[in-house]
Amino acid sequence: MLGRLNHVAIAVPDLAAASAQYRTILGAEVNEPQVLPEHGVTVVFINLPNTKIELLEPLDEASPITAFLAMNPSGGMHHLCYEVEDILAARDRLKAEGARVLGDGEPKIGAHNKPVLFLHPKDFNGTLIELEQV
Amino acid sequence: MLGRLNHVAIAVPDLAAASAQYRTILGAEVNEPQVLPEHGVTVVFINLPNTKIELLEPLDEASPITAFLAMNPSGGMHHLCYEVEDILAARDRLKAEGARVLGDGEPKIGAHNKPVLFLHPKDFNGTLIELEQV
Repeated sequence: MLGRLNHVAIAVPDLAAASAQYRTILGAEVNEPQVLPEHGVTVVFINLPNTKIELLEPLDEASPITAFLAMNPSGGMHHLCYEVEDILAARDRLKAEGARVLGDGEPKIGAHNKPVLFLHPKDFNGTLIELEQV
Repeated sequence: MLGRLNHVAIAVPDLAAASAQYRTILGAEVNEPQVLPEHGVTVVFINLPNTKIELLEPLDEASPITAFLAMNPSGGMHHLCYEVEDILAARDRLKAEGARVLGDGEPKIGAHNKPVLFLHPKDFNGTLIELEQV
């Protein structure tokens, strides 16, 4: 069922500083910031040869990243995004196995304009998992 | 400088349960466990089409993963491993930029029998970064 690792998301307290660090110190290909008001974040994608890193900065106090950064002021790895071919089939299989889908269980449109779902981290070794239909 | 994302490491409290979950519920290709006494861990690699997930379970109380699991009893994302072509050149560039290399600063031999170094998570948005020479 699991396809490619689409991206690893890292929550950061200062997106400009983190972007500059990946660009200049780590020598990676860093894209321009995208503001995503419907997700409460500004994102910067870093292109690696085989996958992407997604840097996330909260837009405001209501952002889903705000509480995470309060707990992890330096930032930290926030979620993994795996690609799936059929997100509704994946969801139904996971629910049948007892895994919890966050929210109302219906896919939302993610940062790549594709349907996404999030799985409860307590069901997956403390790792927040995003599934994206590709 | 940064090459491929070689793997994402996830510390888990129960390697057999986590392996079974990735194999049967998430439908991934899961390898056999490898005991690495010199690193204090047992590892299971999960092959995704473009990268790997490394599940880590501590071998004993002295394992570098033990304290992490005490803080995160359900487990959690532990580190990211980026590939580099020349680990000594990468280290020297990072040190010149003020980044801290863990330990004595000399590469060790990692789980893939290749030279690795770890960078201080506080210098990289709370993310523990492993560099592996490929």
